[in-house]
Amino acid sequence: MSNSPVVIEVTRGPVVESRHEGIAAVVKADGGVVASWGDIDAAIMPRSAVKPIQAIPLIESGAVERFALGKEHMALACASHNGEARHVETVRSWLAKVGLGEGDLECGAHPSRLVWRVEELARASAPLTNASNNCSGKHSGFLTTSVQHGEPTKGYIRYDHPVQKRVRGVLGDLARLDADALPCGTDGCGIPTLAFPLRNLALAMANMADPTRLASKRAEAIGRLRAAMNAEPFMVAGTDRFCTRLNGKLGGVIQAKGGAEGVYCCMLPTLGLGVALKMWDGAGRASEVATATILDHLGVLPAAEREAIVHPPIKNVVGLLVGEMRPAKSWLG
Amino acid sequence: MSNSPVVIEVTRGPVVESRHEGIAAVVKADGGVVASWGDIDAAIMPRSAVKPIQAIPLIESGAVERFALGKEHMALACASHNGEARHVETVRSWLAKVGLGEGDLECGAHPSRLVWRVEELARASAPLTNASNNCSGKHSGFLTTSVQHGEPTKGYIRYDHPVQKRVRGVLGDLARLDADALPCGTDGCGIPTLAFPLRNLALAMANMADPTRLASKRAEAIGRLRAAMNAEPFMVAGTDRFCTRLNGKLGGVIQAKGGAEGVYCCMLPTLGLGVALKMWDGAGRASEVATATILDHLGVLPAAEREAIVHPPIKNVVGLLVGEMRPAKSWLG
Repeated sequence: MSNSPVVIEVTRGPVVESRHEGIAAVVKADGGVVASWGDIDAAIMPRSAVKPIQAIPLIESGAVERFALGKEHMALACASHNGEARHVETVRSWLAKVGLGEGDLECGAHPSRLVWRVEELARASAPLTNASNNCSGKHSGFLTTSVQHGEPTKGYIRYDHPVQKRVRGVLGDLARLDADALPCGTDGCGIPTLAFPLRNLALAMANMADPTRLASKRAEAIGRLRAAMNAEPFMVAGTDRFCTRLNGKLGGVIQAKGGAEGVYCCMLPTLGLGVALKMWDGAGRASEVATATILDHLGVLPAAEREAIVHPPIKNVVGLLVGEMRPAKSWLG
Repeated sequence: MSNSPVVIEVTRGPVVESRHEGIAAVVKADGGVVASWGDIDAAIMPRSAVKPIQAIPLIESGAVERFALGKEHMALACASHNGEARHVETVRSWLAKVGLGEGDLECGAHPSRLVWRVEELARASAPLTNASNNCSGKHSGFLTTSVQHGEPTKGYIRYDHPVQKRVRGVLGDLARLDADALPCGTDGCGIPTLAFPLRNLALAMANMADPTRLASKRAEAIGRLRAAMNAEPFMVAGTDRFCTRLNGKLGGVIQAKGGAEGVYCCMLPTLGLGVALKMWDGAGRASEVATATILDHLGVLPAAEREAIVHPPIKNVVGLLVGEMRPAKSWLG
């Protein structure tokens, strides 16, 4: 319970060249705040950090059994992926299973964040399609849920579509708020994205980590999603991604998911805690170092991981070490 | 002279989703501060924003005449370019003029920031070479100056090489400080990068805008560089770049150059002013909106440019308007 904010420094040689400020909360499923930095009652937009929550209605619908979906599909439903070959191919085969195709995805297409993947597609003269969108797994989950419930799939990204109503219902349950009353914007992939206090986002993550207070069907769905994120960490993000590293190396202990504009969330089931943070400037690089620092503070980061993610090096074009990122001394440095 | 910092907001729907904070100074060549926001005596690293200053020794050396260099080369010497075909080809032909090649560039190679350029090179199976580095023009200028002075070119990026000593001499003259005494790190392209107060960076830009206090040879070199930046704005940056827009649309009124980690500088010769700003979080997106806001505040931004760069839209993947960036009301909003 500290009022000092999260501060991450970026050094170059002997100088702190840049710094990032944010807020973070570590919360129990009963709402008790274990640790906090900055004003955690400030409203933020969780963006893609709540994809694991948005995937719950898919599991609850029974569609996983009906369409014989596996952990790779459940992990993809929680993903912001790189659009690598395995991501794209799995989305395509998934949509075929439910009788749909890429044209049903309403997320649009964008290039991969990986330069080598952009080059690979260019060399193959492969057109960029909706399945390459980092959100295509989530959207496949939305479409599948809609098919399972016998609804029209068209317009599934709209605020009033049953798909989005269910998502708000689950979010409200986990974050303990009236999701229908929240300010709403449009996410990068077209779905509604809501603004609410960071404290409630951490609480939602705590209910994901420790779902004992939830209905048993919901608790079971959450357990399956958490297991899928750890079993298929590549599907949650991909090559060289912080999410893949955490979900892969700390299976059972952490399920992690970031969001755009500097949001990061973790479920810590062994501790029964939820972690949520937002860097005010929207910097993903800082949200990762801040998350690593909090995980280290909570004692769940193996020593072998610590240095690389709490003090990540900054290298220049020729690979020379020119600086690092780190928590400021005024925070947890 | 305000203590309130530069604040840029990023909205999504009805919400301010992220915000960026920084410092800025508008200074005259006599050192008088016309306007300032935040602590302008804080030390920052100007990074590539001082490339026009680093290019002065090239002009002063007489190499432009000897090797028949044009405005395109002088603009490239001030550039952080996109590695587009014209940038790369001009660097190659320039190096050939002075009897050198890409292998003499010590900046290393990195992919273009433009996805379509990455795709173009991949389809052509063209290898990435040093001339593609955004700093290759500056490095070609360094090499050319070294050749002109009859020095060994190898190691021209090192702190003690005559090339870098000359750069420090000019910087010290324009910023009125002892550049040899400043804290030093290594830039992305391998050269030394110095830390000093933002006030002095704005003063250096004021001396670029109004070089009447400088030695006449230096003042003349600056005038040629400023003219080159306006005559060849594409060479300073490239397609879809803020620098290209300002230098191209506001010729004679503004010469502008950004740097990594949220730095932006402008020379305003008609007003005799220098502008320098640093966003603390290093966000380039915010440095551009902040620069546009200050230019508007100073009355040098045409109405036709105002909306697009003071309130740039944020669109999602399918092109829907989902928010904007803007100066906060607490600042100049």
